[in-house]
Amino acid sequence: MTNSRIAPWASPRAQRRLAEVEAAVSADLSAAGVADTVGKALAAHAAQVDDDGIVLYAGTNVLSPAAAAANLSSVSSRPSMGWPGEKYQVGLEHLDTLEVLAPLLVAELMEGSHAEVRLQSATLANLAVYTAFARPGDKIAVLPEAAGGHASHHPQGVPAVRGLTVVDLPYDPRRLDLDYPGLPGFLRVHRPRIVVIGASMMLFPHDVATVRAACDEVGAILLYDASHMAGLVAGRVFQRPLHEGAHVLTFSTYKSFGGPSGGCVVTRDPELAERVSTVAYPGMLANYDAGRLGALAVTAAELAERGPSYAAACLANARALAASLHDEGFRVAGRDGEFTRSHHIAVDALALGGGDAAGLRLGEAGVYLSGIGLPWQRADEGLRGLRIGTQEITRRGFTPQDQPAIASLMRRALLDGEPPHRVRADAVALRREVNRRTL
Amino acid sequence: MTNSRIAPWASPRAQRRLAEVEAAVSADLSAAGVADTVGKALAAHAAQVDDDGIVLYAGTNVLSPAAAAANLSSVSSRPSMGWPGEKYQVGLEHLDTLEVLAPLLVAELMEGSHAEVRLQSATLANLAVYTAFARPGDKIAVLPEAAGGHASHHPQGVPAVRGLTVVDLPYDPRRLDLDYPGLPGFLRVHRPRIVVIGASMMLFPHDVATVRAACDEVGAILLYDASHMAGLVAGRVFQRPLHEGAHVLTFSTYKSFGGPSGGCVVTRDPELAERVSTVAYPGMLANYDAGRLGALAVTAAELAERGPSYAAACLANARALAASLHDEGFRVAGRDGEFTRSHHIAVDALALGGGDAAGLRLGEAGVYLSGIGLPWQRADEGLRGLRIGTQEITRRGFTPQDQPAIASLMRRALLDGEPPHRVRADAVALRREVNRRTL
Repeated sequence: MTNSRIAPWASPRAQRRLAEVEAAVSADLSAAGVADTVGKALAAHAAQVDDDGIVLYAGTNVLSPAAAAANLSSVSSRPSMGWPGEKYQVGLEHLDTLEVLAPLLVAELMEGSHAEVRLQSATLANLAVYTAFARPGDKIAVLPEAAGGHASHHPQGVPAVRGLTVVDLPYDPRRLDLDYPGLPGFLRVHRPRIVVIGASMMLFPHDVATVRAACDEVGAILLYDASHMAGLVAGRVFQRPLHEGAHVLTFSTYKSFGGPSGGCVVTRDPELAERVSTVAYPGMLANYDAGRLGALAVTAAELAERGPSYAAACLANARALAASLHDEGFRVAGRDGEFTRSHHIAVDALALGGGDAAGLRLGEAGVYLSGIGLPWQRADEGLRGLRIGTQEITRRGFTPQDQPAIASLMRRALLDGEPPHRVRADAVALRREVNRRTL
Repeated sequence: MTNSRIAPWASPRAQRRLAEVEAAVSADLSAAGVADTVGKALAAHAAQVDDDGIVLYAGTNVLSPAAAAANLSSVSSRPSMGWPGEKYQVGLEHLDTLEVLAPLLVAELMEGSHAEVRLQSATLANLAVYTAFARPGDKIAVLPEAAGGHASHHPQGVPAVRGLTVVDLPYDPRRLDLDYPGLPGFLRVHRPRIVVIGASMMLFPHDVATVRAACDEVGAILLYDASHMAGLVAGRVFQRPLHEGAHVLTFSTYKSFGGPSGGCVVTRDPELAERVSTVAYPGMLANYDAGRLGALAVTAAELAERGPSYAAACLANARALAASLHDEGFRVAGRDGEFTRSHHIAVDALALGGGDAAGLRLGEAGVYLSGIGLPWQRADEGLRGLRIGTQEITRRGFTPQDQPAIASLMRRALLDGEPPHRVRADAVALRREVNRRTL
């Protein structure tokens, strides 16, 4: 096999692809050549997401036109350290506006009193919370990996940066939720500093009040990671984590929230807020890219006005797509006859070769998503599920009436074994039809 | 006093400004109103940096037109996790090009073999290195705060996130550099896991080979933080840290390097590279904003061609401005009759009321920079110095012939006590003259 220059330690599969791309890009490494290569890659990506692809990946979205316009590269390359009124740098008074608007609007929208908006990702937002409320050697309790728990909750992620021990919360695979009766006893045994709920695949809300009561018994901080659910929380259609008892809410700003890349921490408690704020700066940030904050503020203001209808539309699309997938013969996860109360859908893909293989086949057919672990899977089954999110297709103008067509494309590619390129032609046609309709 | 809503724990001075901005922005919090407020703030910022300000702040820059064009918000909101060929998401093949080009070009440019380019800041790049090579409770040795050491080296910054103990390296204020004779004995006593050199104010190169020899004696990893010097390292005009013996090089991509916001880790050792890469992903990153990588690749390719002349021009401007400031009566730091071998200049501002006060006064006069600690200052002197960098004015077209005019503006505002608004008129005129000349 050919070795990769940039990552000779990567897996053979990754090295093959890396070596292929390394050879291709090396044809012209002049400044003009690189600008041309980059421009072509961006144009091809734009064509896929804006023109011809059906993006069902659960953790992405597209900026609104007003948010996309609130961008200036000269802000991103200008450090802004410290609060307005006492910044380390002189001459940044105009950025004070962004630095006030973004946390003000985000806190209000998410039903908190204070928002830390400077961290560059939800993973780093979680690290800030871990650092504020746990010390190296302390324990945190999180959702199991196969139950949608995120890498930033698990031992291979930022808990290891902080030197934390991680234990899995008791989980009920049948209910697709925590094992609530088992929780108080578990917490009394483990006494974690922080309990993390909220997941990367979340079909049903948690019973936050019950978790909070159990946390209070052992003095644990309850962190709700709404990375995927933030747009629904903003739209008040899924659950209200801070109102229901979470001490701290973290989330990703570019998934269902639909804003720029980044992470936020929101709380109702000024003491907790101050601790997180101090960990964020000067603990984890010097400069932090204030350029994101304009788009974040615009997104939050738009969600305050149009969030409920957007979130309701995401849910309606998810219900319709789940029902159509079920009708087409897919094994759609759910409970009590209900497939989802969020914008997420989970399909058991074991019979389709597993989530990764099924996802790759769908990609060739022009439908883009990813595999996901399922709570009932065995360790040797890889990612057993397919995860679907409707947050991006909703923004792009897809309605419940379009969902049978998407389900049909997926059936043809995965169940009927039709050649992907033939399915792709129809996927592209469907996307372009929706684009025309929404122009 | 009025309390701030967003940060009621901030200092009285910060809260006054926050409350003022909070009241101003709250006039219209509708989506349209927020978009308008954000647009006006960005336009005002753009006017200052592109049209009428003289930005001497040492840690900023402006993107080249080609790098600024390599931007697409739909890439930034599309997660890309894992290596090309085995990404978690399907349908990101076009981004493989960016993910290969950027590390390939950055490693080559900085004289390394491997570059980790996904981390969002140099602070996080340093945290990745700390996490890869030190465990909670371990010790690292860094430059003293008043010697230009960065927050990400010190106990209030990311070392605390990792739970590290921090000790100051022996320093010679007279030489504005490490106390080399004292170093081996110091390291034998403290036995740090990591030695961090490279600073936020750096007038002269370090003797990297001597530090490396001392590190080898105690088995310490030598980290050179070139956040400020990266553009000069790329241009081969200051020093060659990896060639001279540093195990690992970290840097910020938007300061003298002149690229987008972000941080890099470069090394010549594949084993060290693999450890850093694994800490970066999946340790500290899930998604990471691949949108940055296009601009980073273009910037690196441009520096490979034009870096030496750009860096030489930064140095020529710094030498000319330092000499002019000296001629105007400022106390310019230096050694052996030389003021600087980098793009940085340090002015002792104690007699001008300290660096912060002098910086604020210059800001009113349309010249933007910041205060800095100086190695000979007492703890009760605040930031005693003014720090100047020529990397942005060089990109904007200023030449050595323009430096006496800048020094004269600074003299009028700081030494002559002329009202800042009168000086500002001439600062604006100078900037516009240079703009016209470079169109």
